[in-house]
Amino acid sequence: MSLVVQKFGGTSVASTAHIQSVAEKIIQARQRGQNVVAVVSAMGDNTDRLAELAKEVNFSGMSAKREIDVLLSTGEQVTIAILSMMLMKLGCQARSFTGGQVGIVTDDSHTRARILEVQPDKLLEAIKRGEVPVVAGFQGVNHQGDITTFGRGGSDTTAVALAAVLEADECQIFTDVEGVYTTDPRVVDRARLMDRVTFEEMLELASLGSRVLHARAVEFASKYQVPLRVLSTFVEGRGTLITKEDELDMEQPIISGIAFTKDEAKLTVLGVEDVPGVAWKILGPISEANIGIDMIVQNVSADNTTDFTFTVSRDDYQEAMDLLNRVANDVGAREVSGDNKIAKLSIVGVGMRSHAGVATKMFQVLADRSINIQMISTSEIKISVVIAEEYIELATRALHSVFELEEEKEKKYLKLGL
Amino acid sequence: MSLVVQKFGGTSVASTAHIQSVAEKIIQARQRGQNVVAVVSAMGDNTDRLAELAKEVNFSGMSAKREIDVLLSTGEQVTIAILSMMLMKLGCQARSFTGGQVGIVTDDSHTRARILEVQPDKLLEAIKRGEVPVVAGFQGVNHQGDITTFGRGGSDTTAVALAAVLEADECQIFTDVEGVYTTDPRVVDRARLMDRVTFEEMLELASLGSRVLHARAVEFASKYQVPLRVLSTFVEGRGTLITKEDELDMEQPIISGIAFTKDEAKLTVLGVEDVPGVAWKILGPISEANIGIDMIVQNVSADNTTDFTFTVSRDDYQEAMDLLNRVANDVGAREVSGDNKIAKLSIVGVGMRSHAGVATKMFQVLADRSINIQMISTSEIKISVVIAEEYIELATRALHSVFELEEEKEKKYLKLGL
Repeated sequence: MSLVVQKFGGTSVASTAHIQSVAEKIIQARQRGQNVVAVVSAMGDNTDRLAELAKEVNFSGMSAKREIDVLLSTGEQVTIAILSMMLMKLGCQARSFTGGQVGIVTDDSHTRARILEVQPDKLLEAIKRGEVPVVAGFQGVNHQGDITTFGRGGSDTTAVALAAVLEADECQIFTDVEGVYTTDPRVVDRARLMDRVTFEEMLELASLGSRVLHARAVEFASKYQVPLRVLSTFVEGRGTLITKEDELDMEQPIISGIAFTKDEAKLTVLGVEDVPGVAWKILGPISEANIGIDMIVQNVSADNTTDFTFTVSRDDYQEAMDLLNRVANDVGAREVSGDNKIAKLSIVGVGMRSHAGVATKMFQVLADRSINIQMISTSEIKISVVIAEEYIELATRALHSVFELEEEKEKKYLKLGL
Repeated sequence: MSLVVQKFGGTSVASTAHIQSVAEKIIQARQRGQNVVAVVSAMGDNTDRLAELAKEVNFSGMSAKREIDVLLSTGEQVTIAILSMMLMKLGCQARSFTGGQVGIVTDDSHTRARILEVQPDKLLEAIKRGEVPVVAGFQGVNHQGDITTFGRGGSDTTAVALAAVLEADECQIFTDVEGVYTTDPRVVDRARLMDRVTFEEMLELASLGSRVLHARAVEFASKYQVPLRVLSTFVEGRGTLITKEDELDMEQPIISGIAFTKDEAKLTVLGVEDVPGVAWKILGPISEANIGIDMIVQNVSADNTTDFTFTVSRDDYQEAMDLLNRVANDVGAREVSGDNKIAKLSIVGVGMRSHAGVATKMFQVLADRSINIQMISTSEIKISVVIAEEYIELATRALHSVFELEEEKEKKYLKLGL
C-alpha cells in the first residue's frame, strides 16, 4: 500500500466547510488505496489574529520568542482537532497529533527552529491501526520539551520531513493554485502549468517570488529526495511534480519558468576605494538594521575605485539610504544614488546549463524592446536582470513567448486567484 | 518567602489590557515579598468560540472527545503566552507552561478528566530562578501524552492542585466579584461580603448556584486543606477566605448564606408501588438521557404506595416528562405531574448543627408571607425548600433579614456585576 503525505495550507482549511472538502479529498485518496498522513496549517487568518495579540503586548527579545511559539502553535492545534473530527464524522478513522506528540524534535531557535529528528513510531502505529494521522504543521518541541515553530512556510517543512522519515511515495502540497506556472498567469495570459520541474529550478523560482512553495521545504525535499507535488485543493488536476533532474524526460526545455518581483529598490555607492573590507563596511550597517539584501553586484575596478550596487525591499529603501549616507564618508565614496522603481526578472531552467546563448537571447529580446538592463546577476540555472518597474510585464510576456513557454492547448483559467 | 497561587478567570484576561492589570497584580504580590504561581483561563469568550467550531463539525462520541480537548486546550495556551510576555515587558521574569509541561497527569476521561498526579519539579525550578510560572488552567495530559481537559471550573481545579502540591500559603481565585456574598446582591440590596466561610458551607453554596467557585475545586481544597481566597481582579479588597472550620472564630453565625436557583422544574410520580427498585426504574431513563437530577424526595408510604418527586433543570423539563410518562406504567403509577415554574432556596451554615429550631424559624418566615413550601430537603448544614418561582426574591430578602445577614456598615456597591 502506498503512502502519501498531504499538506493543506491556511486557505484550504479556512472554515469548517473548507475542512470538509479537505476531509473528502483525504478519503478519496484512501479509496484509491493510499495511506494518508495529513499535515495542516492554521485556519485562514488565525495566525495573523494571534500575532496581532502579541503585537498588542509589544515585547520583543529572546524570551519573548519562546512565548510567541507557545502562542502561534495553537493555530495549527485548532485545525488538527477540527479535521480529525470531520474525518471521523465522514466515517474515516483519524487522530490528531501536535508537533511534540508526533516526535518532531528541533533545535532551540524559537520562531525559526530547525528540525533535528522525527520519531515516526506514533505515526506508524496510527497508520497500522488504519487511522489517518492529522499532524499540526509548523511546530515541534526542543529537547527541553518547549514548543518551537519553524517560521514562514513551516507547514511545508513539516510535510516534507514526515514524508522523508516515513519514506512516503509522494509529498503533496495542496494550495489555492493549480500548480507551478511558467510565470505569473495574472501577467501572462498564456502562462502554462508545468507538469514537472526540478528541485533546483523550483528553488530559484520559489525564492524569486513564485509564492507557491517555500524555499526551505524544497531544499529539504531535494536533500532527502522526496517527490513533491503542488496541486489545488479546489480544482481537480495533477498539479506540478517537483523531483530530481534525472527522473525528468531527457528532452528538457531550455527555460522552465520566468519569475519576477516588483517592490524592489536598488542602492549604489559610486567611486569607493577598491580595497579589502569595503563590502563589509557598506553592508554591515544594513544587515544590523535587519534589512534583507537581495542582489549584490560589484564590477571590476577602474582607476582603483569601484561602484557597488545592491537591492533591498522597497519598504526598506529610505532606511537603507539613510544608513548608506552615513557610511559613505568612511569608505571614501564619491556619491550615493538609488532608485526605488525597479523590478527583478529571472529566467530559470536546468536546460540552460547545456545551451550557450541563453543570456544573449534574453538580452536581445530586451534590447529589441528598448528595455535598459540596470543590473545582471547569474547562477548556473538562472539569469536575473534588474530593469525599470514599468517594463516588467512587457519583458515577461516577450521572454515567455520567445522561450516558447506558452500553453499549447486551450487556456486553462485559474478558478481561484494566485 | 511565602508562596501564593493566583488564578485569573476568563473575564480577568479578556483582552491584552485586562492582562496588563493581571500582570500588575502579580507584580504587586511579588513586591510584597511573595512568590507567585499564576494559573489562567482562556481569554474572554475564546472557549465559546472554539466550542462553536466543534459544533459546526457536529460529531460526537468518545473519539470526538479526545479532539475536543486538543481544541479547547488552545484557549488557555494563548493566555499563558500573552501573560508571560506582559510580565516580562513589565520587568518581571516569567515563563509559560501548558498542563502537560507542568506535569499535570490525569486519567483518560476526555472533557472531564481527573488529576492523578502533579510533578512539581519544573515549577520549583522556575520559582528558584526567580520566575513567575504562568500555567494553563483546565488541562493536563494522560499517561499516553494525550491532552485532557477538566470540564467547567477546571482552571480553579488546576490552581488548587498546584497550591496543594507546592504547599502554597494560599490559593487566590481572582474573579469579577469581590468575594462570596451572603446571598445574591442583585436580589438583596444589603447582601454582605463574607470575610470567611468554611469549605463545607462553600460547597453547599457553590453547588447551589453561587457561581463564584466550582464545587470540585472547593472539594479539592478541602481535601488537601488549601486555604482558598476569592477576590476581585478589578476592585481592591481582601475578598472571602474559605478555610477549614476550626480556623474560624468560635462565635459563628448560625446561617452563613442563602443560595437560590431559578430555572428549575419538578416532576412527580404519584401512587407508585412502594417496593425495592422503583426509584431506579424511575430515574434510570432520566440519567441515561444525560439529564442532571438535583433534589430527590420520597416520603414514607401510605397504603403501600408512595409519591416520588425530583427536580431537573427547566431546559430538560419536557424531555424528562416524556421519559417519565413512558415508565409510569411499568411502576404502576397512578399519575405523573410536573411544574416548571419553581425555584429552590437554601440556607447554609455550619452553625445550624448546634442550633435547634433553624428549620422551624425558616418555615415560619415563609408561612408569615403565605409562601407555600412544595418540597423540603436537608443536609447537616443546609435546608433547601422548593417554592413557586414568583416568591423567590421575597423569600430570600425575608430570610436574609431574619437571620441577620445584612451588611452592618455602609452598603458597599459592587463595582462590577455579579
